[in-house]
Amino acid sequence: MGAPVTIALDAMGGDHGPSVVIPAAAIVAIRHPEARFLIVGDGARVEPELRAHPALAAKTEFIHTDIAVAMDAKPSQALRKGRWKSSMWLALETVRDGRADAAVSAGNTGALVAMAKFCLKTIAGIDRPAIAAIWPTIESECIVLDVGANVGADSRQLVEFALMGAAMARALFGVERPSVGLLNIGVEEVKGLDEIRKAAAVLKDAPLPIRYHGFVEGDDVGRGAVDVVVTDGFTGNIALKTAEGTAKQIAEYLRAAMGRSLLARIGAVLAQGAFRALKEKMDPRQLNGGIFLGLNGIVVKSHGGTDATGFASAVDLAYDMASNGVVKHLANDVAGFHAKLELEGAA
Amino acid sequence: MGAPVTIALDAMGGDHGPSVVIPAAAIVAIRHPEARFLIVGDGARVEPELRAHPALAAKTEFIHTDIAVAMDAKPSQALRKGRWKSSMWLALETVRDGRADAAVSAGNTGALVAMAKFCLKTIAGIDRPAIAAIWPTIESECIVLDVGANVGADSRQLVEFALMGAAMARALFGVERPSVGLLNIGVEEVKGLDEIRKAAAVLKDAPLPIRYHGFVEGDDVGRGAVDVVVTDGFTGNIALKTAEGTAKQIAEYLRAAMGRSLLARIGAVLAQGAFRALKEKMDPRQLNGGIFLGLNGIVVKSHGGTDATGFASAVDLAYDMASNGVVKHLANDVAGFHAKLELEGAA
Repeated sequence: MGAPVTIALDAMGGDHGPSVVIPAAAIVAIRHPEARFLIVGDGARVEPELRAHPALAAKTEFIHTDIAVAMDAKPSQALRKGRWKSSMWLALETVRDGRADAAVSAGNTGALVAMAKFCLKTIAGIDRPAIAAIWPTIESECIVLDVGANVGADSRQLVEFALMGAAMARALFGVERPSVGLLNIGVEEVKGLDEIRKAAAVLKDAPLPIRYHGFVEGDDVGRGAVDVVVTDGFTGNIALKTAEGTAKQIAEYLRAAMGRSLLARIGAVLAQGAFRALKEKMDPRQLNGGIFLGLNGIVVKSHGGTDATGFASAVDLAYDMASNGVVKHLANDVAGFHAKLELEGAA
Repeated sequence: MGAPVTIALDAMGGDHGPSVVIPAAAIVAIRHPEARFLIVGDGARVEPELRAHPALAAKTEFIHTDIAVAMDAKPSQALRKGRWKSSMWLALETVRDGRADAAVSAGNTGALVAMAKFCLKTIAGIDRPAIAAIWPTIESECIVLDVGANVGADSRQLVEFALMGAAMARALFGVERPSVGLLNIGVEEVKGLDEIRKAAAVLKDAPLPIRYHGFVEGDDVGRGAVDVVVTDGFTGNIALKTAEGTAKQIAEYLRAAMGRSLLARIGAVLAQGAFRALKEKMDPRQLNGGIFLGLNGIVVKSHGGTDATGFASAVDLAYDMASNGVVKHLANDVAGFHAKLELEGAA
């Protein structure tokens, strides 16, 4: 571990603002005593919260602004009104200027994508950033991207997503050559959209630091068939929300089934330790955070409606990504990929 | 109920062929005593099974062919080799010729789509057929289409899918004006792919026998937000398989959690009635069957790997669709829609 990691927090994002963000930061400050914080928001609301958490306050620099991006603002609107001065922008700016290693916001996703692109710019050699999600699998976890930064993706972008996802898997899971699959509607080579088949042709032969697995289908994601699942932002977003919806639905069935008879209720009481373990496994707060990949800096988007536990796990993610130097590794991978392609082209 | 319903069965489709198809038909013959069957396949394998089920055999006409479509044949190949003579084709042909009211096959999906289109032709006014799935929701069920007949869909096709899904919902759920949602990555009007937004503009104002709900997201499907969810075949297929994968994954978690401690195991035993109810609710065999909509006839595709219980539920579905006259209703709706559009155009 090198220099202390500093995380910038947009205190005004999300449904609850500072009343969630500050307690979350306090949780992370205990889990990672060497972390530093840069908290941006409205002093009238942030400072009382900070006073309630003196240990956090001692390792926090506070930046005041009374401008916040509305949760329902359109990206273009947010960019026009909130640039240079909103809490979201100022948090990103500290990353751009090297004062912070990563930024976390629970604000408006579209606005955050637009501002982050504008403020941090994409890494050289990367066309468009993507949002990656950590997806629980039967055995452990995998990374799925893009889950909503873009609508659609061409073959070149899909290949870039593969590179970005692999860099993240290397940092978070410690796998040297992460396995990568392209999400498709069948595993045969002839299946699916043209752009996906073109991306497959590139990934199969390219000199990349990945193990290309081939096509994967919707049910392979949760099975943990690969470390990284690559898809366009439209499909990825729908798959992610469908999985979340199905998990909620089954929890609902389980609750109903367990309340149905006296025996079932007694059984449920005896098995409550097991249910707690199951609940924890299915708790979306444990894996809260979409990571923006492909920018010159780390940005994590937390769910807007989450609580302090959930926001803290988004901050943890930013911390892990920053202390593993994901952006530097990714920039190297991309440069190496393009250099090799050029060499091959020249040969 | 009018004339008895006759269901044509491709006995050679699926991983198990007649050893699943015939016992399944025997189950349906008990559930629907007025049903008749037309079973197509290789006599050497079908006839011994039929002899074991004399009550079924009494209401079955058997058609022999020793040609079957391979599970891994490409659609074009299957069409070239299996047309006119394979068990899949002959089953479809009985529907075309009015000898059967619906056909069921557990064979190769791509081949079945290609043959069904070629044999039955699309209903006048419908551009492309779609595969509809019945999706369990917290309260009951909804219909999702297209789940894989096509890759991609333009706005006109999406509108046609809405009409087809609504006709099916009317037949199966008995709702006069089914609610219809377009699957998208956000509920705001500005979100998503162009074709989806164009379809929304048509659905909002068109004189259709539906209640247009607006956009729905991935987690709205299982919540039961609408009766019919419309999407293109690529997204729909991935959403469906993702939901199936998530359900399996959670069942796995539950099994692991319940075996973890003695108390949990005792609890699980006491609650086993509840678990059985849950298992039934989550049993994919209960809702086995993709329905091809938009053709001049009813075709149901069963999962290839299912057992007799699963195949029987696909046959039940075909029976319900046939006895409700879905094809006739759908043809009327489409004709009505086009007539109104023309009237409006002329006005």
